[in-house]
Amino acid sequence: CRTPELFSDQGGPEPLVTLRVLQNNSPLIAWVLLVSAFVGLYATLLQPHGWPDITSHTSFLTPFTLTSFAVSLLMLFRTNSSYGRWWEARSACGRMFNHPRIMTRLAAAWMPPEEDLLVRTIGRWAAALNPAAFAYIRADPSYWQHATEVLTPKELRWLRGCEQAPFAALQVISQLVSASRSLDSIQRQAIENEVSQFDILVGAAERISRQPIPLAYTRHTTRFIVCFVTFLPFAFWPLFGWASLPIMGVLSFLLVGLENIGIQIEEPYRVLPLHRFCMGVKRAVQLTLEQREAAAAVASAS
Amino acid sequence: CRTPELFSDQGGPEPLVTLRVLQNNSPLIAWVLLVSAFVGLYATLLQPHGWPDITSHTSFLTPFTLTSFAVSLLMLFRTNSSYGRWWEARSACGRMFNHPRIMTRLAAAWMPPEEDLLVRTIGRWAAALNPAAFAYIRADPSYWQHATEVLTPKELRWLRGCEQAPFAALQVISQLVSASRSLDSIQRQAIENEVSQFDILVGAAERISRQPIPLAYTRHTTRFIVCFVTFLPFAFWPLFGWASLPIMGVLSFLLVGLENIGIQIEEPYRVLPLHRFCMGVKRAVQLTLEQREAAAAVASAS
Amino acid sequence: CRTPELFSDQGGPEPLVTLRVLQNNSPLIAWVLLVSAFVGLYATLLQPHGWPDITSHTSFLTPFTLTSFAVSLLMLFRTNSSYGRWWEARSACGRMFNHPRIMTRLAAAWMPPEEDLLVRTIGRWAAALNPAAFAYIRADPSYWQHATEVLTPKELRWLRGCEQAPFAALQVISQLVSASRSLDSIQRQAIENEVSQFDILVGAAERISRQPIPLAYTRHTTRFIVCFVTFLPFAFWPLFGWASLPIMGVLSFLLVGLENIGIQIEEPYRVLPLHRFCMGVKRAVQLTLEQREAAAAVASAS
Amino acid sequence: CRTPELFSDQGGPEPLVTLRVLQNNSPLIAWVLLVSAFVGLYATLLQPHGWPDITSHTSFLTPFTLTSFAVSLLMLFRTNSSYGRWWEARSACGRMFNHPRIMTRLAAAWMPPEEDLLVRTIGRWAAALNPAAFAYIRADPSYWQHATEVLTPKELRWLRGCEQAPFAALQVISQLVSASRSLDSIQRQAIENEVSQFDILVGAAERISRQPIPLAYTRHTTRFIVCFVTFLPFAFWPLFGWASLPIMGVLSFLLVGLENIGIQIEEPYRVLPLHRFCMGVKRAVQLTLEQREAAAAVASAS
Amino acid sequence: CRTPELFSDQGGPEPLVTLRVLQNNSPLIAWVLLVSAFVGLYATLLQPHGWPDITSHTSFLTPFTLTSFAVSLLMLFRTNSSYGRWWEARSACGRMFNHPRIMTRLAAAWMPPEEDLLVRTIGRWAAALNPAAFAYIRADPSYWQHATEVLTPKELRWLRGCEQAPFAALQVISQLVSASRSLDSIQRQAIENEVSQFDILVGAAERISRQPIPLAYTRHTTRFIVCFVTFLPFAFWPLFGWASLPIMGVLSFLLVGLENIGIQIEEPYRVLPLHRFCMGVKRAVQLTLEQREAAAAVASAS
Repeated sequence: CRTPELFSDQGGPEPLVTLRVLQNNSPLIAWVLLVSAFVGLYATLLQPHGWPDITSHTSFLTPFTLTSFAVSLLMLFRTNSSYGRWWEARSACGRMFNHPRIMTRLAAAWMPPEEDLLVRTIGRWAAALNPAAFAYIRADPSYWQHATEVLTPKELRWLRGCEQAPFAALQVISQLVSASRSLDSIQRQAIENEVSQFDILVGAAERISRQPIPLAYTRHTTRFIVCFVTFLPFAFWPLFGWASLPIMGVLSFLLVGLENIGIQIEEPYRVLPLHRFCMGVKRAVQLTLEQREAAAAVASAS
Repeated sequence: CRTPELFSDQGGPEPLVTLRVLQNNSPLIAWVLLVSAFVGLYATLLQPHGWPDITSHTSFLTPFTLTSFAVSLLMLFRTNSSYGRWWEARSACGRMFNHPRIMTRLAAAWMPPEEDLLVRTIGRWAAALNPAAFAYIRADPSYWQHATEVLTPKELRWLRGCEQAPFAALQVISQLVSASRSLDSIQRQAIENEVSQFDILVGAAERISRQPIPLAYTRHTTRFIVCFVTFLPFAFWPLFGWASLPIMGVLSFLLVGLENIGIQIEEPYRVLPLHRFCMGVKRAVQLTLEQREAAAAVASAS
Repeated sequence: CRTPELFSDQGGPEPLVTLRVLQNNSPLIAWVLLVSAFVGLYATLLQPHGWPDITSHTSFLTPFTLTSFAVSLLMLFRTNSSYGRWWEARSACGRMFNHPRIMTRLAAAWMPPEEDLLVRTIGRWAAALNPAAFAYIRADPSYWQHATEVLTPKELRWLRGCEQAPFAALQVISQLVSASRSLDSIQRQAIENEVSQFDILVGAAERISRQPIPLAYTRHTTRFIVCFVTFLPFAFWPLFGWASLPIMGVLSFLLVGLENIGIQIEEPYRVLPLHRFCMGVKRAVQLTLEQREAAAAVASAS
Repeated sequence: CRTPELFSDQGGPEPLVTLRVLQNNSPLIAWVLLVSAFVGLYATLLQPHGWPDITSHTSFLTPFTLTSFAVSLLMLFRTNSSYGRWWEARSACGRMFNHPRIMTRLAAAWMPPEEDLLVRTIGRWAAALNPAAFAYIRADPSYWQHATEVLTPKELRWLRGCEQAPFAALQVISQLVSASRSLDSIQRQAIENEVSQFDILVGAAERISRQPIPLAYTRHTTRFIVCFVTFLPFAFWPLFGWASLPIMGVLSFLLVGLENIGIQIEEPYRVLPLHRFCMGVKRAVQLTLEQREAAAAVASAS
Repeated sequence: CRTPELFSDQGGPEPLVTLRVLQNNSPLIAWVLLVSAFVGLYATLLQPHGWPDITSHTSFLTPFTLTSFAVSLLMLFRTNSSYGRWWEARSACGRMFNHPRIMTRLAAAWMPPEEDLLVRTIGRWAAALNPAAFAYIRADPSYWQHATEVLTPKELRWLRGCEQAPFAALQVISQLVSASRSLDSIQRQAIENEVSQFDILVGAAERISRQPIPLAYTRHTTRFIVCFVTFLPFAFWPLFGWASLPIMGVLSFLLVGLENIGIQIEEPYRVLPLHRFCMGVKRAVQLTLEQREAAAAVASAS
């Protein structure tokens, strides 16, 4: 895999990661610190000279205690629904291993030795399904590199030229299955069923990657949290004075960082290791083809 | 797509969107501000003249702290269930891409060249399923425009005249499949299975669009929140004085805006881009028909 | 539909609905007001004469703040699980449209013109499935009225005499399918599959309607909430005096009303418009039979 | 049904049930009252004599307000997951009605009159599946009583002697289906599918009954709640004095009662009316066999 | 089973388990106690000598009350999603009992006595599926011990040498089914379906064991909780003085212990009794083979 993946979920030593999270959220944290500093300067420089007193209501905390619950629940909702989408996407990726492998296994088990070439061709196209699917979903041609070893240059050129490549590849497999002379209707239908399952998986992947959580929600959540941390320094000044700057810094880092993670995970296909999945499926199909004769030998020996 | 879609989820620059949300919730926010102003005027004008003191209980906050959890949880429940319905509707729309495409692919793979016209006709009717379904679910004839290119004027006229058009279209596909002389029982059954799946999807769409969340819930939630923000100014006056007006404004904007989003998302078929889906399915079926021969050529070449 | 449905989810103008909710919860609200009044009378009449002081602990609020969270979460749990049951029931009702329609469509597509009478009979019995199912689940014979038009008086008499009518009707359909001479095993099995799906749906409906949420939960929730609102006036008197009466009234209306809705929605088959569903399915099957020839004509013309 | 079922979900008049709940939780409530009494005695007897002051920190409430959320959420989690398991178990029990009934209906519909005895035998064994399954899952031979009427003494003796009786009974049904000379592969496969579904249901029941929620969770939850109510009297004494005894009593009854219900419902097969289910399935299968000829007569008359 | 399983969910007497939990969390609890001690020493030794006053803000509690919701909800989210993964993994393990048993039962029911050896061989390989799957998922060869009794040394050697052993075993079963001369296409397809289901289960197990909850979440949760308990001693000192040490100890034990359980349960295949599952499946398949003739005898006798 030569293309680096953005936002890949690799972790790293804690200080570095904390720094990266800090960096991602820096505009909002900077804004919150700026507001805190403004509140402090106003209270120490202007208020003593008769400017209106807006920083010494200790009761100004009340609206925050009344809504801190709503803020937390909004973040839980965002976290939950992002995680739900991410896990659905991950499960769909997992199923994308199963169906190419199963269709190859069925072809290998049911087709006689004289159709060996056809079995291999079905396997080759099955291994090309994932690159085609990810290139289509992510609109990123770098996934095609995983198809170069399994398809001939001519096939690859044709497939890349198709408007909706993964479905074109599924159609090729359908035609290959139809071309077999040894399979009866039941067996063809069983393999076609795996092909249809893959069609449904690509549809699910498309749905998750193209359809965000309704903007209205995500925007209102962001709006709510931004309001919350913007006005909080006014409530914190009478309690903590200049200490409210570091306190606001930590608090906004924790709250906004959580919100930010939700936003990133919401687009699961940006964070899942798709290149690794492509290589995994290719290997799985390859092994199915390679082990076929050994398995047959083991089966007939017992 | 020529018909604009209401409430479409397009976003836009933040200030405009905030303004739009503000506008949607204006009656309630206005009401809350009115109550706040009334409390202020009463406290400053009438109370000093011996009218009963209803605005200086600082302990009046207690009922609000005791119920702020309940309000927040009610809003989470509404948000969660609206989102659940919306995602179920979106998933059903996604499956409405798969089944027409799969039935076309199966017909194309299994029927011989001499039944080519029949394959095309099945494809044409498969592409007409989505316009028929959405016109039926939304009771909005504008979706029929997407069927004009795939059906003949006579077919379209007949279909639009049917009482439950999507199911009539499914029956036409059933009859077309039965008319084929090359398909055996297994293959006909496999295609009929896709037809039945589409029937079930239309049923699911009908259920989501016709059956709201029980009115008792949504009304009591609204009642709870309206009570909460209506009485809150009485608790805020002794704490903030006239500052309670802007505070109440922001608070009700945040709380009521959230509630309002839940109500809009509850009717997912009003916010999903159905016209775009119709065009997408039409294109997917079209590509399946067009790529058929190319796929067969690629398959036989390998 | 001549029989009115209890608790049907029709809404109405807000003041009336509020009144109805008020009425449903009146015993508990009355109890809470009584306790509040007793606390007030005790504090003003007896306590000054040396009776023990039980109403002036301002710290008596503490147990309520510590448990208000638990009360709110219990109500969320009740609301969530009631809604889950209701939506599962509604989905099952929706599937009860699909399977009768699908079995009729399959019979109509696969059986030749000379078995036209058999197709019609299958359709008639498919339309009778829903009345039989709802009469069985709700133990309410009024649903049978929807079967009078589709079954002969003799058939209806026999079916109503059966101990578990919906399953007897499914068996009749099985026998009708077996009686066809033109269907092969695959096709019979495909229709039997729809019959079995309906069997499973009736089972699901029976489960939801006969099995309440464990009594232990619902009772403890009620107990918790009753305790909460019964003792709250003791904590409110030192804070609000006689104003605690209207405050307790509004609070108990909001809290208990929510709990009450959960209880009602818990029995979804009492609130869903089952009569309307019966008529809808009858119409759907009728249309499938009527449109059959038109669909065949359209199919053969293209 | 002659064997009483423990913890059956029957309810009863409220005071009695409250008493029963009280009784179940008595050790912990007693412990909490003991601690409260100890705190009171220490504060009134020993502290005035110079013993260290551990009961007059009013700020001792703080740790409890900070963790009351966590306690409530832990109980919600327990309640939710117990309810989820219970509903999954109840749904599995409901499906255990469907599959024996469906396999009997299919056999009855497809097998000719000359194999009538075989149909009856399949029905008899289908009715024996539930007693075998529950006796196996609950390791309680009392469920076998429901099989005495359907199996011959010899069959019953053999089945009870099998190590995993329900799966042995499924194998007998497989052999009976294979023994039919009239069923073709498709039909045998359709009935075998119902047999396999029952196998999967028994597996699900085994999983739910043998695998508790991870002990680590349930124990830590209990530990958390016990800590919470054990230390609470120290915080309540300075606020309520001797009144903290009844307050702690009610509070621990409500909190610990909820926790206790979760524990009971966690083992759904102890609270579900399995004997009633056995009798229900027996009757359902019996009716399927009895109504067979009547249904055939009705079918052929129309 | 000779290999001990780490973290197995066995429980034990409460004091010991508490000790073990204490031990697992000791670094963080130690850290919290250290911070508490530092705060105490600073306040008693250095502050009186003019060092800046950082420990006597009673209002320092505010940020903690505002975020205690968020901390609790984060822990609920972690608990919920870990439990969800664990239950999904447990359900997949349960299905791994069903499919080997079903494939053996189908082979035993459909294959004639002269293919008895083939039935036995299919059963042997079905029993080897679980060891192969767990050895592959856990990358732990100790599970192979459960295959020694069912496979010949030669077969076992070959299987262990395969790169993806469970899928190689599935291929052997496919070849064995294909080798049967008595099964028709329908029956072969039915058994292949069970094989494919097992393939999907292994894929699901791989997904759950290889794909953790996104690191970004788990890390931010940990960061949030560590911040919370690290700064809490500063807020507790002015309230409790040296008593804040034991209070912080208990509090961090309860909070961090919960978090820690979530982390452990997140990798379900480390805590599930996989060795026991292997032995269970072996026994189930064995019983299916052994009871076959007895079941046939019972079936033919009735």
